[in-house]
Amino acid sequence: MKFKGVYYICLFFLIGSFETSIGVDDTSKPDPLDGVATARWLVSQNNWGVLSTISIELGGAPFGNVVSFSDGLPDKGCGIPYFYLTTLDPTARNTLKDERASLTLSESPIGSCGKADPENPTCAKLTLTGKLTLVTENTTEAEFAASALFSKHAEMKAS
Amino acid sequence: MKFKGVYYICLFFLIGSFETSIGVDDTSKPDPLDGVATARWLVSQNNWGVLSTISIELGGAPFGNVVSFSDGLPDKGCGIPYFYLTTLDPTARNTLKDERASLTLSESPIGSCGKADPENPTCAKLTLTGKLTLVTENTTEAEFAASALFSKHAEMKAS
Repeated sequence: MKFKGVYYICLFFLIGSFETSIGVDDTSKPDPLDGVATARWLVSQNNWGVLSTISIELGGAPFGNVVSFSDGLPDKGCGIPYFYLTTLDPTARNTLKDERASLTLSESPIGSCGKADPENPTCAKLTLTGKLTLVTENTTEAEFAASALFSKHAEMKAS
Repeated sequence: MKFKGVYYICLFFLIGSFETSIGVDDTSKPDPLDGVATARWLVSQNNWGVLSTISIELGGAPFGNVVSFSDGLPDKGCGIPYFYLTTLDPTARNTLKDERASLTLSESPIGSCGKADPENPTCAKLTLTGKLTLVTENTTEAEFAASALFSKHAEMKAS
């Protein structure tokens, strides 16, 4: 039995209460007291995080999965994280049943926490909560999402 | 109103189907085809991950949180991840209501993925699922957990 990749690999994005600001230059670390700017910076500078969904297989238990994502071209984040998921993986299957999700990021992988422990409040942490939704194919958003993802994750383009 | 720290900062551990092997030397990366050894190595070598719980505040949505953890002295992992959590933080409050949790780790922070994308199958990922339970105070396990945590996260000792 043969399936076309399009049925399995789909673009998803997370809608939350995170305000967007397309085209903002996110290269320099914001003032830690500016929570919104720090959150946008974390999303823009990180290229992976943990996406948590409600597990179908585990009867409603929480299930976190390491995922690569992008919210725009390098250093030009839009604030909406996009993912390239496959329904061969439980995360995508879970979200098609229950779209509630959270994306969790740490400043630690960016390398700007110095010697501070990842749990130290000076090493920023972010949990975005919202709904993980399919991007509609053949739309401007789908083009933007693909471009955002492929520019930061070249390996995805070949998949 | 004043509270003693002991009411707020507690040791938790995750019980899952992850078999333990106390005292194993986990310094070298195992054969990727050996899933169990790779999982133990990831737990032993990582010092932070994302702990996902069912959110009380968000009406049952999944909530991932960056947490520091330890499963033993450096390079001597026991396979059980221990955490030092506070009920000032939603993760601990959530787990006292519903103990189902998952701990998600990536090989990426260890630095052994080279240029591979964190979502590339050659860059290991691990999701441990189980119950997040309080360690009983004044027991051998509590001593072990404190020693495991403080040896890898010196900042915790001062908290």
